[in-house]
Amino acid sequence: MIKVLGIDPGTNQTGFGVVGKRGNHLFHIDSGTIKLSHKKTLSEKLFLIHQEISSIISFHKPEALVIEEAFYAQNIRSSMVLAHARGTVMVTGKIHNLPCFEYSALEVKRASTGYGRATKEQVFEMIKRLLNLQNEQLQSFDQSDALSIAICHLNAFDLQKKLEAHQPVQGKHHT
Amino acid sequence: MIKVLGIDPGTNQTGFGVVGKRGNHLFHIDSGTIKLSHKKTLSEKLFLIHQEISSIISFHKPEALVIEEAFYAQNIRSSMVLAHARGTVMVTGKIHNLPCFEYSALEVKRASTGYGRATKEQVFEMIKRLLNLQNEQLQSFDQSDALSIAICHLNAFDLQKKLEAHQPVQGKHHT
Repeated sequence: MIKVLGIDPGTNQTGFGVVGKRGNHLFHIDSGTIKLSHKKTLSEKLFLIHQEISSIISFHKPEALVIEEAFYAQNIRSSMVLAHARGTVMVTGKIHNLPCFEYSALEVKRASTGYGRATKEQVFEMIKRLLNLQNEQLQSFDQSDALSIAICHLNAFDLQKKLEAHQPVQGKHHT
Repeated sequence: MIKVLGIDPGTNQTGFGVVGKRGNHLFHIDSGTIKLSHKKTLSEKLFLIHQEISSIISFHKPEALVIEEAFYAQNIRSSMVLAHARGTVMVTGKIHNLPCFEYSALEVKRASTGYGRATKEQVFEMIKRLLNLQNEQLQSFDQSDALSIAICHLNAFDLQKKLEAHQPVQGKHHT
């Protein structure tokens, strides 16, 4: 059994998803959206993200933190703000002594839908089905994206274990 | 007497400077450069920045943390990496319950040299003179920039106190 925490950072809202895997069975443990009032300053938002993620880690004790690789949006300003949140998430994981893994958006989408260019709606529907969630349990794309990120790592981790059984491999690149 | 911590964040090295002011007298308390090995991963570097700044805050107990406003460099990748470090610095201040103040590069340079477009070398020389530092005490531009950021806030703070004595003013924008 392994349990990981996927995070989809953002300064409007940050999605999180704790997913477990036993054998081939994936199961939903906890997930949600940390909503950040636009009235708060950036450092207040970062602190809230840090506090919420800290308490999720303390409560669920996942083995790893997983995020999407940084991407460079058209809008430099919003990419930069996002990077502040991403840095906060990474350092919060390290404060709790968690290894941090990163996957590309393509890998993350492929993990839940089998298709690297799936839409957010498609990821949302597949996550609901894969984890057997009720409508009221899954409420935002940030949440479904975070769950998809966690699943991506669980599958990659599984694959690596199978490979290791046959030959020594390089550890998955982690930051 | 007021004591503040200026930070010049970076993922190669991060400069810090603790400066005090009593009456019109500025004095150097502590400063230096946190060096970050290029062999470390980004999240390891962020964690080191967090740890070092945490211990500086715990030791010196400054009243505020001061940084430069985010700027958008030509190179998006390096701006994004810098934003991760900046987010880490901001959240570390908040963890220690410090207010965080921001000033533009122009304001920071003007504070130490009187000239908003001063070079790093000019800032370095003026900081050395203003704070009465020996050659061996000031070793990098990150360090002199961090000290200049701290001084910028101390002067703005002073100005604000004078203004407040005459009329109620809006608090300095802080994030």
